[in-house]
Amino acid sequence: MARILTLTLNPALDLTVRAGGTLRLGEVNRTESTRIDAAGKGINVARVLAKLGHDVTVSGLLGANNETDFVRAFAACGLRDAFIRVPGETRINIKLSEAGGRVTDLNGPGLRIPASALQALFARVDALLSAGLDAVVISGSLPQGIPLSTPSDLITRIREHQVPAWLDTSGAALVAGLAARPSGVKPNDLELADWAGHPLDTYEARLRAARRLHDDGIADVLLSLGSEGVLWASDGAALTATPPPVSVVSTVGAGDTLLAGTLHGVLSGWPRERVLRFATALAAESVRHIGVGEPDAVDFEQLHQHTLVQSLSMDPSAGETHP
Amino acid sequence: MARILTLTLNPALDLTVRAGGTLRLGEVNRTESTRIDAAGKGINVARVLAKLGHDVTVSGLLGANNETDFVRAFAACGLRDAFIRVPGETRINIKLSEAGGRVTDLNGPGLRIPASALQALFARVDALLSAGLDAVVISGSLPQGIPLSTPSDLITRIREHQVPAWLDTSGAALVAGLAARPSGVKPNDLELADWAGHPLDTYEARLRAARRLHDDGIADVLLSLGSEGVLWASDGAALTATPPPVSVVSTVGAGDTLLAGTLHGVLSGWPRERVLRFATALAAESVRHIGVGEPDAVDFEQLHQHTLVQSLSMDPSAGETHP
Repeated sequence: MARILTLTLNPALDLTVRAGGTLRLGEVNRTESTRIDAAGKGINVARVLAKLGHDVTVSGLLGANNETDFVRAFAACGLRDAFIRVPGETRINIKLSEAGGRVTDLNGPGLRIPASALQALFARVDALLSAGLDAVVISGSLPQGIPLSTPSDLITRIREHQVPAWLDTSGAALVAGLAARPSGVKPNDLELADWAGHPLDTYEARLRAARRLHDDGIADVLLSLGSEGVLWASDGAALTATPPPVSVVSTVGAGDTLLAGTLHGVLSGWPRERVLRFATALAAESVRHIGVGEPDAVDFEQLHQHTLVQSLSMDPSAGETHP
Repeated sequence: MARILTLTLNPALDLTVRAGGTLRLGEVNRTESTRIDAAGKGINVARVLAKLGHDVTVSGLLGANNETDFVRAFAACGLRDAFIRVPGETRINIKLSEAGGRVTDLNGPGLRIPASALQALFARVDALLSAGLDAVVISGSLPQGIPLSTPSDLITRIREHQVPAWLDTSGAALVAGLAARPSGVKPNDLELADWAGHPLDTYEARLRAARRLHDDGIADVLLSLGSEGVLWASDGAALTATPPPVSVVSTVGAGDTLLAGTLHGVLSGWPRERVLRFATALAAESVRHIGVGEPDAVDFEQLHQHTLVQSLSMDPSAGETHP
C-alpha cells in the first residue's frame, strides 16, 4: 500500500440531465433524470487508487459554499480530505443528453482564487510531503486567474522531496508544467499534439514527441489514444497496449483510470508489460459504464487477458514504426 | 408571534443557469453563473413568516440523498425542520436563461413516495397539531404516485384540531383539496379558472367563483392577479388591492409572499384593509428581485402607501362589477 496525494485545482460538480425527448428551447421540458456528482480528474484518480488499496489523500481548491457533495464522496471512497476551502462555489458543469443522442455541455465559470488560498495549498502540500508520500498526481485544468506556473511550482516542491510527480493537464498549463520536469505525464494524443505543435497521428510522430520529453528529463510518457489503446514510452523503451473492443457508455474517467492503474503497477514494482496490460484493461472496463474503472468487475480477468501489449523500437533511425 | 406550520409535499432544488450568449445545442457552451437554491412554495411562505417574527416549522417530503441545501436554508432562515426524509433525491428543476431573454425550463421527476413516508408525514402533522399551532399552510404540487386525496386528508386532520388551514395548489390537487373545506385558499386567476371550468377575466366572474367557494364552506379566497393586484373575498365582503408599478425581475415567490403577508396580518388581528394593503405591497416588493418579499426593504413604507385598496360589492344582483 502506497501513500499517494492527488491534486485537483479546478474540481466541478457534474450535473447529468437526461431529457426524455428532444429539448425545446424557450419551453418547459420534463427530464427523465438528473444527478449531481462531485467530479474532478484528480478525485477520479484517487477513487481508483483507493479501490486498489492505497492510502490516498485528495487536495486542491474547493468552493466552501457547496462542498457537501465532495465531502460525502470523499467519505464514501475512503479518501483523506486535504482540500483548501475557497470562498464561493465550485463550478457546476451541466451535461444535457437528449433521447436522440445529442449532448449539450453548459460549463460554469471556475472559482476566483485569492492568492492566500494558493499559498495555503502550497503549505498543505509541503506538510503532506514532509509527512511522507510515495507519489503525487496533479490533474485537470486551472481555475481562472491563478498563475499558469502553479503546476510547475508544485512539481518543483515535489521533486525537492524526491517524490515522483505525475502531471495530467492540457494547453498552456501542460506546457508550463512540463518545464518543471515531472517524472511522468499522461496526455491524450490531442493534448500532446497541442504541445508538439503538429498532429501526432503516426506512432513515429508520437515516439518522437516522447523522445523530446525524455530529453527534457521526463522519464514516463503515458499517451492515451482512445479506442486505439495506449502508448507508454519510458527511457529507451516503448510499449503499446490495445484493449479488447467494449461497448462505450461514457469515456469520462477513462484517462484517470489509466493513470491510476499505471501508478498502482509501478508502485507495486510490477514489470512494465504487466503494469500496462492491467492499466489498459482497467481503463477499458471504465468506459462500459458511468464512473471510473472497477477492478472487481466480474469479467475483469477476461478484459485483462484480451488486452494485447507489444514492444516498439524507440530507435530514431527505424523510420515509420507500427506496433 | 404565531406558531405556523407550512407543508411542502414536492420541494425542488432550483438550479438557475445564465448563459452568456445564445445556447447552442449539441455543443460546449460556457455559462456566466449557476446557482442552486432549496425551493418549494411552502418553504417560501415559511421564509417570509419567519422574517415577520413568527415561530415557523416546515414539513413535507424531502429526498434523503440531497437534503443539504435544504437543511442549510432552514438553518439560515430560522425554520424548524420537520420534513420526512424519503429514500432518493429531491427533484432538480433547471432554469436556463440566455442573453436574449429566452428561458428554458428542465423540470426533473419528483421522488417516488412510499406509503410509509406518507403515514410518517400524517403522524408528524398530528404531533405538531397536538403540540399547538395557530395556522397551517399546504403549498405546491404533489409528487408522482401519491394519492390526490393527500391535501384533503391533511386538511381534515387540521380542521379536527380547529386550526385554520390554507391551501395553495393547482389542478386536480386543488379540486380534491377544496372538497375538504380549508379555511382559506390562494389560487391565481388561471388556477381558479381551471377549477371553475371557464375563464375568470372579469371581477364579476371572479366574485361568482369566490361565492361558490364560500357556499362550499371556504371562508377566505385570496386570488392573485399578477400586476393587476389581488382580490380577497371573505364571507360577505370583497376587497381588491392594486400595487404601485414596479420593475419586474422575478415573479417566483410573489404568490407565496402574498399568502404569508396575509396570514401575518390575519393572525395579528389587523383590520382586513390593512392586511391586504400590507400583503400586496410585500408581494410587489418581492418581484423586484430574486427571492421572497423583504419587509425591511428601505422603500417598503412607500410601496405600502402607494398600494390602493378598495371594497367591492359581493351582491350577486349587482351585475358586472369593477373596482
